[in-house]
Parts: sequence; C-alpha cells; structure tokens
Amino acid sequence: MSGRSLDQPHRRIRITLVEPEGKINFAFILRLAKNFGIEDICVVKPRFSIKDPEVLRFATRGIDLIEKGKVVVRETLNDCLENSKVVVCTTSKERGSRDVLRVAVSPVFLSLILPRTGTITLIFGRESTGLTREELKVCDIVSVIETGTSYNVLNLSHAVAIYLYELTARRCETGVFGNECSNETYKAMLREAWKISSALGKDEAYLVLKRILARASLRGKECGVLYKLFKSIAKLLVKD
Amino acid sequence: MSGRSLDQPHRRIRITLVEPEGKINFAFILRLAKNFGIEDICVVKPRFSIKDPEVLRFATRGIDLIEKGKVVVRETLNDCLENSKVVVCTTSKERGSRDVLRVAVSPVFLSLILPRTGTITLIFGRESTGLTREELKVCDIVSVIETGTSYNVLNLSHAVAIYLYELTARRCETGVFGNECSNETYKAMLREAWKISSALGKDEAYLVLKRILARASLRGKECGVLYKLFKSIAKLLVKD
Repeated sequence: MSGRSLDQPHRRIRITLVEPEGKINFAFILRLAKNFGIEDICVVKPRFSIKDPEVLRFATRGIDLIEKGKVVVRETLNDCLENSKVVVCTTSKERGSRDVLRVAVSPVFLSLILPRTGTITLIFGRESTGLTREELKVCDIVSVIETGTSYNVLNLSHAVAIYLYELTARRCETGVFGNECSNETYKAMLREAWKISSALGKDEAYLVLKRILARASLRGKECGVLYKLFKSIAKLLVKD
Repeated sequence: MSGRSLDQPHRRIRITLVEPEGKINFAFILRLAKNFGIEDICVVKPRFSIKDPEVLRFATRGIDLIEKGKVVVRETLNDCLENSKVVVCTTSKERGSRDVLRVAVSPVFLSLILPRTGTITLIFGRESTGLTREELKVCDIVSVIETGTSYNVLNLSHAVAIYLYELTARRCETGVFGNECSNETYKAMLREAWKISSALGKDEAYLVLKRILARASLRGKECGVLYKLFKSIAKLLVKD
C-alpha cells in the first residue's frame, strides 16, 4: 500500500439525511458508509423504519452500522449539527443561480478546502424537494455536482457515493501509483532496452522506452515480465 | 463554468455491462447515463428484460436512452468492443494482488491517461462475481476504486456513478495527458508487440506491453518511434 495507513487521522464525515423517502436509497447509503469507513449517520425524520426488511436487504454489510448504533434518528436538522466543525449542504440546483443561498462549489473544490480534522456534517435533502431555504441557511458551504448536462439531478444515494469518494477515498491517493520496480530490476531493464535499441541503431527508441517506462506506473509483477522480455530480445539481437 | 462548454468534443464513454443481475441497478445506471450525457450503453445477456416495469420506474429520465435506441443488448462481450479506442475493465479486487491480470489504476489516474477523443469502453462485471479472467484479458487497462477500507466492494450502480463523475464531469480539469497515437499506428504497434511476444513464447509479456502502452500517455512522436522499434524487432525474430 506504498506506506499509507488505513488508520491515519482524517476528517470525520457525518452523513446527515433530511427526511429521506426511499428505503432502497437509505440502504445503499448504509452500504456506501461501510465502504468508505463512515461511522456517523444522522437521519432526520425518515419516512420509514430504519430497520425495515427492505433496508436490511439492500444494505448488505452496511447493516453493521445500525447494529453498532452508528445510525441515529433525530427530530430536527439542528439535532444533527452537534460538534460540527463545518456544515455542508448539497443541492442539485445550478451554481449559476443568482440566489446567494445557493452559491455552490464542486466536490473537488470542497475536498481541497475542508479542514483535515474535525467533524464535517454533510447534509443531503429529500429525494423529492431537496433542502428548504431555512435548512440551507444553517450551512457553511453549499456544494453541487455538475454533471455537464442539463439533467444534473442525481439519485440521492449516487450523489452520496460521489461525495464520499471525493472527500474520503482520495485522501489516500498521493504516492500510491509510483513505480514499484526495485532499483536493480529497473536499471537492469533499462540496460537491456539500451542493448536492443543500439543493436538496431535506434538511439531515439531507447529514450522513448525509458520515458514510457517511467510514466507507466509499473507494478512489481510487470517489472519482472518486462525485464525478462527485454533480456530475451537483447540476447537474440546481440549474440552475433 | 470556468470557460468550458458543454458542447466541446470529448471522449465518448460506452458503458458496457456484462450479465447484469439487478433491475434496480440497471435502472439507476440508465439515470446516471442520462445525468452524465452518456448515449452508448451495451448490455451483454442481462438477466431481465431491459424494459421491465421496475427498470422503467427507477430509471426516471434515463428511460429516454431506451426509447432512443441508445441501449443495445448483445450476446457476447466482444460484440460491445467495436470501434473502441481503449477498453477499461473495472474490478473490486485489491491492487496488491500478484496477478498481472488484475494490476489496476485508480479512477483519477484513469481520467488523466485516457485519450481525449475516441470511444472508451468501460466494462462492469456481474454484481455477484465480477468479470472472468477471460473477460479481463480483453482490457487495455484495469481500474479499481479504493475506498480506504477493507470493504471496497461497491454496489454496481454506485461504482458506475463514481466512474462517470471522474471521467466525464471532471474531464475539463484533466485530459492533458491522453494517448495521442492514431488508431492505425496504435493497432499496428500492438500487432508487432504480439509478434515479438509470441515468437519468444511469452504471452504474458504481450499483456504487460499492451497494459503499459495504454497507461503511458503516449505522445504522437513516441508512437511512431515505438512502432518502428517493435517492427524491427519482430522482423528479426519472425524471419526464420
């Protein structure tokens, strides 16, 4: 895992759902929370029992969160804001709106500006009508997913997927895709590539090989396979 | 909108689903396709009718895609690969695997290396068992969503949401590093690579070459150099 730890301290996300209407969406959100390591879910007046059989069926391993008491049901949105460092509302209303209440930033921008520690309360509105103006007023930041089309109203749980992906999973990205070859294998591979290129009188080809090998984020297993390939070719070309 | 136009030419994504099992997932994928402006969906042997009432209920405006003939049902995965510039397989199997077939990159990395034009076929496997080894072999690139937990098996339509978000909506922030080779040169290069690998009895080496070429963000000039290098080597190896 290139030195990253799954346990490194990071911002805690509290998923807050305001009056969710669909059991399947709710179940999928539990599964997503489990996928992305979220353990703080606050639900304001859901329109169903959070232990409905349909919820349990679609939540798969997300059921753990209910069993472990990580999902709480509350009467008001305010009850879900306790200890929040930053409160983020999500909306599907266009950023271009002249309404200052709806001025919104993208998930990527959000991931850059949110503090790295503390509780971030991420609020999602009703499937049918979203968040009210009064609800939007409690937020520090509003965010919208621009889909690049005029139909950017995502289904609730799919919006949650994208926010969790952007705000949690990518924190681990840095340095993950470096070249994994050992120095010895990498250098040996380049030596064979050089033999091949010069045997064929193609100095420029060596340069290109070197460059693309450096860019291709080689995995350990691939290094060995390529080294042996280059070595076999070189042996055939240089033996005379 | 940071100066970007919704109408600018961009990579076309073909969503390809191999034997999808769940109607609700399929419906959500249609809605996501509509959200993100995808108009090319190929479905290999679905386990339900694509016009099932449950599909129509959850797809909302995604129904347009069925009505307009943008969703095709095919008998084999191969039938879905026509005119692809790059074929990407998705998997939830860990990157750490020693199996060269499953060496995978993140969605972010993918968004950086995919060419800006041409058809990208993005393949998703069965909900239950994913893609087979034979299916993984047709891919140029394998990608995995790392969720930062040990449970990174996302529900199908949520994985689709994250890929579409990463590969289309954000396309305007990226796209600088796409493969610049012409289709002809690229294919010719792969043919020569195949000749070399099979002349040496190294089938796995071909797979690795194909994969690293797809990942290396080749520039136009580099394509020509590599093609000629491979051709020279192949000529020497195969002439007997």
